[in-house]
Amino acid sequence: MIIKRNDEKLKIILGRGESFNEQYMDTVLSIINRIRKEGDTALFELTKKFDRFDCEKVEITRKEMEKAYKNLDPKLKKALEKAKDNIVSFHEKQLEKTWIYEKSEGTFLGQKITPLERVGVYVPGGKAVYPTSVMMNTLPAKVAGVKEIIMTTPATGGEVNPVVLAAAYIAGVDRGFKVGGAQAIAALAYGTATVPKVDKIVGPGNIYVALAKKLVFGQVDIDMIAGPSEVLIIADKSAKAKYIAADMLSQAEHDELASAVAVTDNKKLAEKIKEELEKQLEALPKKDIAKKSLDNYGAVILVKDMDEACEVANVIAPEHLELYVESPMEMMLKIRNAGAIFLGENTPEAVGDYIAGPNHVLPTGGTARFFSPLGVYDFIKRSSILYYSKKQLEEDMEDIITLAEHEELIAHRNSASVRQKKR
Amino acid sequence: MIIKRNDEKLKIILGRGESFNEQYMDTVLSIINRIRKEGDTALFELTKKFDRFDCEKVEITRKEMEKAYKNLDPKLKKALEKAKDNIVSFHEKQLEKTWIYEKSEGTFLGQKITPLERVGVYVPGGKAVYPTSVMMNTLPAKVAGVKEIIMTTPATGGEVNPVVLAAAYIAGVDRGFKVGGAQAIAALAYGTATVPKVDKIVGPGNIYVALAKKLVFGQVDIDMIAGPSEVLIIADKSAKAKYIAADMLSQAEHDELASAVAVTDNKKLAEKIKEELEKQLEALPKKDIAKKSLDNYGAVILVKDMDEACEVANVIAPEHLELYVESPMEMMLKIRNAGAIFLGENTPEAVGDYIAGPNHVLPTGGTARFFSPLGVYDFIKRSSILYYSKKQLEEDMEDIITLAEHEELIAHRNSASVRQKKR
Repeated sequence: MIIKRNDEKLKIILGRGESFNEQYMDTVLSIINRIRKEGDTALFELTKKFDRFDCEKVEITRKEMEKAYKNLDPKLKKALEKAKDNIVSFHEKQLEKTWIYEKSEGTFLGQKITPLERVGVYVPGGKAVYPTSVMMNTLPAKVAGVKEIIMTTPATGGEVNPVVLAAAYIAGVDRGFKVGGAQAIAALAYGTATVPKVDKIVGPGNIYVALAKKLVFGQVDIDMIAGPSEVLIIADKSAKAKYIAADMLSQAEHDELASAVAVTDNKKLAEKIKEELEKQLEALPKKDIAKKSLDNYGAVILVKDMDEACEVANVIAPEHLELYVESPMEMMLKIRNAGAIFLGENTPEAVGDYIAGPNHVLPTGGTARFFSPLGVYDFIKRSSILYYSKKQLEEDMEDIITLAEHEELIAHRNSASVRQKKR
Repeated sequence: MIIKRNDEKLKIILGRGESFNEQYMDTVLSIINRIRKEGDTALFELTKKFDRFDCEKVEITRKEMEKAYKNLDPKLKKALEKAKDNIVSFHEKQLEKTWIYEKSEGTFLGQKITPLERVGVYVPGGKAVYPTSVMMNTLPAKVAGVKEIIMTTPATGGEVNPVVLAAAYIAGVDRGFKVGGAQAIAALAYGTATVPKVDKIVGPGNIYVALAKKLVFGQVDIDMIAGPSEVLIIADKSAKAKYIAADMLSQAEHDELASAVAVTDNKKLAEKIKEELEKQLEALPKKDIAKKSLDNYGAVILVKDMDEACEVANVIAPEHLELYVESPMEMMLKIRNAGAIFLGENTPEAVGDYIAGPNHVLPTGGTARFFSPLGVYDFIKRSSILYYSKKQLEEDMEDIITLAEHEELIAHRNSASVRQKKR
C-alpha cells in the first residue's frame, strides 16, 4: 500500500464515483412525469410501493418534531445544540449585503441580495441517517433568511428516526413530509396538493434522488451531486503515525467506496502509518468496510518533497484535506482544490464533521475543483441594480446605438434613442 | 391586451419556457456516450454531420481572434471596448476575499477563495450571435482569475462570425474550437485529444446544448439553463407611454416566446401604452416577431395600487424589471424576485444589455426566484479552513465522542480520542 506518486492510482480514486448513471434514466423520468401529471395520487402510490407506507398522515408537524426533541437523550441534546450554535456562528460570516455605488453623478449600480423563499431538504432513509447532516443542510438556509424549510424523508413503514426529527426541530425545519426517492424530488420541484413547490432542493440521496435532482434542475435550483467521501492527509516528519491512521480509518469506515490517502516525503513515517492502520483496524466494529475501502482506494503515497504532496492534493481535489505538517498555514496557500482544509495536529476531520461550525456538506470525488461547501451563498440570490441619470444615458447613447444596429435589434436602439435630447 | 391581474395569464407567461424536454434525451445521451468513448473521432464526425464542416483545423488561435479584432469597424471596436471596461469595473465589485477569524485562542476558522482553473464558454451559432454576449460570459471568469478560457462555437461550413472572434479577443478568450451542440458540451466536460476538459461550462444554446449541460452536471459545473427572455415594467402616472412601449418592443423583437408586460394603476396610461405599441410596432424590421410575442405573452396589467404591482412582479420573477415610477428606490426594496432591476425614466433595458456593466446573462422564465445574474461568484470556489488548538479540541472532545458514538462511527470517535490528554 506504500506507493510512489502514480497517476493510475489517482485515476482509480477519482473515477470511483461515477456521476453519469443513465441506466436509471427511464425509471426516474417516468416517476417525475407521473408526479407532474397525477400529483398526490402518484406520490402516495409510489410511497406505498417503495416505502411500504400508507400515506394517510404524510405530514410531520413542528409539534411532532418538538416531541422528539423533548425525549432526546440530554447528552445528545447538549452536543447537537452546541453544534447548532457553532454552525450558525460560522455561517453568519458568509452573509452578504446588498451594495450600491455611484458610477457617475446620479448614476448608480449595485447588487441586491434576497434570501430564497422556500427550500426543500432531502434527508435519506436507511441505516446511515445522521442528525448532524439534517442540521448542516438546514442551518445555512435559516441563516440566509429562508422563510420556509420543508424536509422530506422516506419513512419505511411510516417511521422516521426520532433523532432526525429532534435535529430537524433544533435546526428550524418548518414542515416535514414522509416521502422519499425521485417522487419526493419531483413533488418538491413541481408541487402537489400536499407537498408545496420549493425554490431549491438540497441534501444527499441515492442514485434515483441524484438523477431526479439533475433532471428537475432549471425548474428549481439544486445543490451539488454528492458522491463517496474522501480524506487526503499530507504529513511530514513532525506528524504522529497513530493520529494519521486514526484519521484515515475514520474516513474508510464510512463506505467501501470511501478513499483515505496519506501523502508524505518521509519513508519511515509511511511505514509506521501502515503498521498503525493494521493495528487500529482490528479493533473497529466496521472493520470489513474500512478494510475494503483501504484495499481499493487507500494508499500511502511517498513523494520527493512537500511541493509534490501539494500537487497530488490539487489533482485529487479531496473533500477533506488534512495538512498535518510543521507549517500548515504556509502550505494552505498552495492548495487550490479541496472542500475543507484541516490544519495541524489538533484538527482531525471529525471536528469538522460534528462540531466546529463550517459545513460538513462538501464537494466529493474531485468536484472540489469547481464546487464549494454548502453555505449561506446557496440560499440567496442576487439582482442587479441599474439607475441611470439623463446625462449618463446621453453619454452612452452613441455606443448603444452602434451595438444595437450591429445586432440588427432596431427596437433596442429605439428604446434608447426615443429618450434622446432633441438636438 | 389591457387586463386586470389575472393568474391564468401569469401562468401562461411563466409556462412558456419548458425546461423539461425529455424527448431529446436519447439523442443527447448517445452523443455524450460517443464522445466519452471515441473522443475526437466522434466529435469530428458529428461536427461534419451537423455543421457540414470538416475538422481539419478545428482550433481557433488567439492570432486569428486578433486578426478579426484588427479588422473590426472602429465605431464597433470603440463601443465593445467601452462595454468591456464597464463590465470589468462592475464585476470587480463582486470579488470575494479569503477570510479567517479566531474562534478561540489559537483556534481559527475561515473560508479560502480560489478561482476555477479552466472554463468553457459555449457560443451558439445561427442568426443571432451577439458579440456582447461573448463578453458577458467571458469577462466575469477573467475578473475572477480563471487561468484559461476555452470558447466553443459551431462553425457552419467552417466559418465563424468575425465580430464574435473580435469580441472573444477583447474579452480574453485563450483558445477556441469550431465545435457545437451536445458534442461540444461533452468534449468540454470529459476532454478529448483536441478539446481540453474544463471545470465549468457557461453560455446559452439550443435544447440539445441545454440538455447536455444538465446531464454532465456533476462531472463539471454548469451555469443556469437559459430560456426565453422577458421584461416587466411597473409604471405610475409619472411615466411616458412612448418610452414604455419602446422598452416593451425591445423585448418583444427578440423572439416569439419573449414576454413584455407593463403593470400600472393608471387606466389612462394603460390605454396610451396600447396606442403607442401599435404605432411603434409598424416601423420595426422585426415587426412580425414582436407582434406574435405581444399577442401571446404581452399584456398591460391594470392593478389597484403599486403594492399589487410589486406582487405581480414577484410572482413573474422577471429577467428584466423596470421600475418606471416616481420613487423607484423605495419600490426596489419591495422586490424579491428579478434578474436585473432598472430604475427610473433614463434606464431602458438596453443600457443593461449593452453598456452599463452589470451582466446581461440573467435568469429567465421565473427562475429569478432562485438564480442570479452570471457573476464572478460563478467562477470561484470556496474551501473551508479549520485550525484547532489542543485546548479547543479538549473542550469539544466530549461532544464529538457523544455524536460519533450515537452515529455508530467508532473510528470517527477514535480520531478525536486518540489525541486526548492522558487523564
